Amino acid sequence: MPARALLNGEPAEGQALLDRSCQYGDGLFETIAVRSGRPCLWSRHVDRLLSGCDRLGIAAPDPDLLLAEAGELVAGRQTAVLKIVISSGPSQRGYARDPNARVTRWLRCDDQAERPAGTDEPLLAQECRTRLGSQPLLAGIKHLNRLEQVLASRELQTGRQEGILCNQQGRPVEGIACNILLRFDDHYLTPPLRDAGVAGTVRQLVIDKQELLDLPLRIQDTQMDALYRAEGLFMMSSLRGIQPVAKLGEHAYPLTRRPDDLGVLHDACFTFGGEPACAD
Amino acid sequence: MPARALLNGEPAEGQALLDRSCQYGDGLFETIAVRSGRPCLWSRHVDRLLSGCDRLGIAAPDPDLLLAEAGELVAGRQTAVLKIVISSGPSQRGYARDPNARVTRWLRCDDQAERPAGTDEPLLAQECRTRLGSQPLLAGIKHLNRLEQVLASRELQTGRQEGILCNQQGRPVEGIACNILLRFDDHYLTPPLRDAGVAGTVRQLVIDKQELLDLPLRIQDTQMDALYRAEGLFMMSSLRGIQPVAKLGEHAYPLTRRPDDLGVLHDACFTFGGEPACAD
Repeated sequence: MPARALLNGEPAEGQALLDRSCQYGDGLFETIAVRSGRPCLWSRHVDRLLSGCDRLGIAAPDPDLLLAEAGELVAGRQTAVLKIVISSGPSQRGYARDPNARVTRWLRCDDQAERPAGTDEPLLAQECRTRLGSQPLLAGIKHLNRLEQVLASRELQTGRQEGILCNQQGRPVEGIACNILLRFDDHYLTPPLRDAGVAGTVRQLVIDKQELLDLPLRIQDTQMDALYRAEGLFMMSSLRGIQPVAKLGEHAYPLTRRPDDLGVLHDACFTFGGEPACAD
Repeated sequence: MPARALLNGEPAEGQALLDRSCQYGDGLFETIAVRSGRPCLWSRHVDRLLSGCDRLGIAAPDPDLLLAEAGELVAGRQTAVLKIVISSGPSQRGYARDPNARVTRWLRCDDQAERPAGTDEPLLAQECRTRLGSQPLLAGIKHLNRLEQVLASRELQTGRQEGILCNQQGRPVEGIACNILLRFDDHYLTPPLRDAGVAGTVRQLVIDKQELLDLPLRIQDTQMDALYRAEGLFMMSSLRGIQPVAKLGEHAYPLTRRPDDLGVLHDACFTFGGEPACAD
């Protein structure tokens, strides 16, 4: 007898829900800012996607095909958001992949619903009780297993746009949808992502271009109290660029504007090439 | 401009892929054996599903509606597998749920592809290098974030049906799609699920009915070497019942048949009520 399915009570082919993205979160995604009709930091996003495919053992999509499809969806838009999802494809029940399944490639472009990234209005953030699990096998990659971020976002109080997530040892790792950068009087600091966290494209841009910073950059573990001692706290993401935080809980930061060095890197986040020296 | 999407290169509405099961694994599932035309251990599966909804903050489906829909799909089949997926519904980008979204309820029934559970052929298992992450917030529930199990299943050598997964401390927790039960000369043991693992319905049946066991049951941490010292190793799942393991790697177990006490509990796994005293 053939399989039968009901989706919200209606008979359903159920093919889409057989995709392993739905069944197991077996895939990866990228969220990309579109400015001046072009996807920003494009090669960094593609590099991360391909690296994630390699780590999860998913056949990598053709980067040229991705760029062509992105171009088709972006056409006619100036400012938008492009999302790419790659999954290991459909399968029946069971954690083992179907070796004959075709990888699923899904791209979607829509107008940016939130305020456009690049504004200078500082964020309001809070500490989250939700802690990130410890899993070195998945740390760094932007996979589709995101229940921790979903639970953390449920904690956000009205008016707070971001939250600080700690690891199982109580050390801050990142924001809910951002990496974090702390500015102290003599250095910058961003936490390592050994056991948890997403290796954000903007974070990686800052690391690669750290010679443009006014202060040395340290990639090292820190504690929550250091977040309250910092001169400034910045959230880094594809859609936000490098955005200052005005308040963490009731604590107000002395520095709530982007210093010039971060401004250069922030602007670079919104170009196709994404390199500070490379005017689009 | 309206959103546009491409699914494997074809223009796509993309509604199914906007479901948060696909985007973030934001949901839960159950896999249920159907015998004699009825879903086995039904109330235990529904209880776990509702408990998972509560922990993830997803509105719980109506159990009577689930049973009616299960009955509709099962009709005309004797031996089959029923899968239920509940997700937080569709949303646009962003980890925050849409408070107006309707929870997605998906049920699918198909004939059992693998050999039917309940056979006495012992399993061949192996140790997995993939370790389970440590995340108390998600431990126990059968959520859709299953990349660890996908990666572990990729390790299985030809002819091996199951693998032993350890936690970050190297202590065995469960199988890839089963819980584990060890028999020693003076006790049974199953590991706790504080930081990782799924609280299987069969495992819970064994715990609840432990007075039917010939030996006391301990729920306690153990080490890999204890798995090699045990008289017998058993895998517990809805589809397998309580199934003996013949070999773990090259190690052959002295006991490769189900003792009488486990036989009673195994048989109970394949009834609608799922209680040993309750003949269907």
